[in-house]
Amino acid sequence: MNQLTFENPVFSCYALAAALLIVKMMSQGWITVFRMFKVNGGFRYPEDARKSLANPDPSPGQLLPNEYVERSRRMHANDVENIPLFLVAALLYVCTSPSLWLAAGLFATYVLSRLGHFLVLLTQRPHEVRAFFWTIGSLIVYLMAGAVIWHALAR
Amino acid sequence: MNQLTFENPVFSCYALAAALLIVKMMSQGWITVFRMFKVNGGFRYPEDARKSLANPDPSPGQLLPNEYVERSRRMHANDVENIPLFLVAALLYVCTSPSLWLAAGLFATYVLSRLGHFLVLLTQRPHEVRAFFWTIGSLIVYLMAGAVIWHALAR
Amino acid sequence: MNQLTFENPVFSCYALAAALLIVKMMSQGWITVFRMFKVNGGFRYPEDARKSLANPDPSPGQLLPNEYVERSRRMHANDVENIPLFLVAALLYVCTSPSLWLAAGLFATYVLSRLGHFLVLLTQRPHEVRAFFWTIGSLIVYLMAGAVIWHALAR
Repeated sequence: MNQLTFENPVFSCYALAAALLIVKMMSQGWITVFRMFKVNGGFRYPEDARKSLANPDPSPGQLLPNEYVERSRRMHANDVENIPLFLVAALLYVCTSPSLWLAAGLFATYVLSRLGHFLVLLTQRPHEVRAFFWTIGSLIVYLMAGAVIWHALAR
Repeated sequence: MNQLTFENPVFSCYALAAALLIVKMMSQGWITVFRMFKVNGGFRYPEDARKSLANPDPSPGQLLPNEYVERSRRMHANDVENIPLFLVAALLYVCTSPSLWLAAGLFATYVLSRLGHFLVLLTQRPHEVRAFFWTIGSLIVYLMAGAVIWHALAR
Repeated sequence: MNQLTFENPVFSCYALAAALLIVKMMSQGWITVFRMFKVNGGFRYPEDARKSLANPDPSPGQLLPNEYVERSRRMHANDVENIPLFLVAALLYVCTSPSLWLAAGLFATYVLSRLGHFLVLLTQRPHEVRAFFWTIGSLIVYLMAGAVIWHALAR
């Protein structure tokens, strides 16, 4: 039976969670852009420190790392390491025909764990809180990948 | 109805765009390799600056960052931040049964926007041109993610 | 015909390979965490070098790059550049209805090539061995992407 259609409520929940995470991760790029404009620096390409419409008053210091900008880049790097794994693991998990409530619970918890992780990094909360949220997301991905392996081998 | 087959022309268009982007992103790794060979440096692993078949004349300076190589790595990092999002967002968008012409137009525009972004970085054009291409790709991903969210909630 | 179900043995093989790679890539994050604990440093967020439960004896030196930790981060970055491409390319390749043995062979070889790449980096073997494993994985992704392009255009 085909699970990958919007007629399957588990797939609908997955698609909703996936699209929200895609919007989040794409927006991290805009946050980096916003921060580079705000501090007028933190650039990485030499051509960005040349005189142009968007940079009327260039200086070589604009190419130095800026912690405010780098933080957003590291947040982006963390998304890059985690979100694509969820996107594929959860898609395959949908194909194992899980119960709607379990699947919806895992997807929602994952989205909330990434939201928590984002807010902790944004507000520079202690490492333990960040580790807590990351661990939850990580365990959900392991759980779904485990269910997929089990399903693939059990047939 | 199942949208994820090559009998669905929207899926065929998606698969074509996705495969082209996968080839592009994979090739960025080879471009980095090519550049490391060309400048005989820009390595990041200490073992790469040891004497070997591919490195008969090693020196510690080979481990220093090299802008020519780093540029390719940053281009790769930009692919990593963007292309996986398109690959999944567009797959889910195909499941919303969009019109063929709209979908094909979005997929083709995305591929062209990434090609433009690649060429701008390769030839070190001003930041504004790069931002233009990146913004187009970003908006297409937002649009598709928005359509997926709408479709998931409207049912 | 729908290929993306566990009733299709090619899909089952894909799902198994994909889940194993997802587990591998997620675990690289834990390896980085383990290494940061072991050397009590290599942190990147200023707040991580503040006094806390997990860091009772902080020092500014904890924020300096540590090669042991950085190696795990670079291994993670390599996963990030490669594994999502396989996950999507192979999914689309499954939709081209390949022969089971060819597909299973490609998937298994890819997983083994990534395992080899991981072990080479872990044990700091010469660059040539790493390049060998990476090249195999890269060629498999190109091959599958090529099959998808061919299939999309041939219809």
